[in-house]
Amino acid sequence: MSRALQESTVDSALVYQGAFLRVRKDLARLPDGSVHGREWVMHPGAAGVLALGDDGRVLVERQWRYAMGRAYVEIPAGKIDTGETTLQTARRELLEETGYVAREWAPLTQIHPTIGFSNEVIDLYVARGLTHAQAHSREHGELLEIEWVTLGWLVDELRAGRLPDVKTHIAVMHLQRMVDGDWPWPAFERV
Amino acid sequence: MSRALQESTVDSALVYQGAFLRVRKDLARLPDGSVHGREWVMHPGAAGVLALGDDGRVLVERQWRYAMGRAYVEIPAGKIDTGETTLQTARRELLEETGYVAREWAPLTQIHPTIGFSNEVIDLYVARGLTHAQAHSREHGELLEIEWVTLGWLVDELRAGRLPDVKTHIAVMHLQRMVDGDWPWPAFERV
Repeated sequence: MSRALQESTVDSALVYQGAFLRVRKDLARLPDGSVHGREWVMHPGAAGVLALGDDGRVLVERQWRYAMGRAYVEIPAGKIDTGETTLQTARRELLEETGYVAREWAPLTQIHPTIGFSNEVIDLYVARGLTHAQAHSREHGELLEIEWVTLGWLVDELRAGRLPDVKTHIAVMHLQRMVDGDWPWPAFERV
Repeated sequence: MSRALQESTVDSALVYQGAFLRVRKDLARLPDGSVHGREWVMHPGAAGVLALGDDGRVLVERQWRYAMGRAYVEIPAGKIDTGETTLQTARRELLEETGYVAREWAPLTQIHPTIGFSNEVIDLYVARGLTHAQAHSREHGELLEIEWVTLGWLVDELRAGRLPDVKTHIAVMHLQRMVDGDWPWPAFERV
């Protein structure tokens, strides 16, 4: 399959370098020999955490998303810092954004949110055995509200169209399958 | 909630204008009075189609995604052309990419894939009553393979981590809920 569709890079240039965003403009040769422009945003990758309390509730954030002009209910998440594994990113972001540490971790799934114009990949984890370790130390320029919510509330919000953030939407749908016993839980490891 | 998190625009500038991508660099004032940079990619919005055959199979595409360097199994989707409703976009993309028209359409859900750095919104639809109308007329620089697959195959691929495209991942999880009778089907309308 791939051979018939595969595009090869003819040329590549960094055309925008901002404080956070970097844009490349490449030329790609298609299997039919034609050459086309391909603009895309370079992304370091990210990790997200479905953090479960001992009572089954889920730890979520409300955060303003400037590009969308609104606040969202989201699971804790953030970009990879240089040299981190995504599990390290997930643990760091959970602590920084919520003040919690988790005793047990398992991979949930990996999602590719923006395949049309970015190489972003988000590794989603599920964490349990949470304890509050510190006041959350918000990053520079990032205001958050933290809240514990039930899976039932999250599913109701999702079905009402009020959970459009894809990492959160997907994490909640997987959690419901696992809680209902339809899909097995992933293997947790102590960290 | 929103009042405590809301950011207001202090300044906004178009810092990159490419063939497809446009990047803005804004200054935002947070509720605590601090001012921070906000870079984001302007997106026109998009629509995707979960297209169901009379036998229950799903119409998918395999398409090379240059930014990711690989091919994906995806539901048909594409960006809004100026002046279109997302239902019009969905019908146009289904016809252009697969050659099919659908008699009945219903909204599935709306997803926001990239809230950290873009305003992209994707309206997902479900379509049924499909008939083949023409050979698919691929867009300039877009090679596609079309395939009919079962929901069971899609769910197996998803659980194996081989369906990371978020619009397709989410559409499949919703479809499984509807087919199993857990969630109601949306109201279809003839177009």
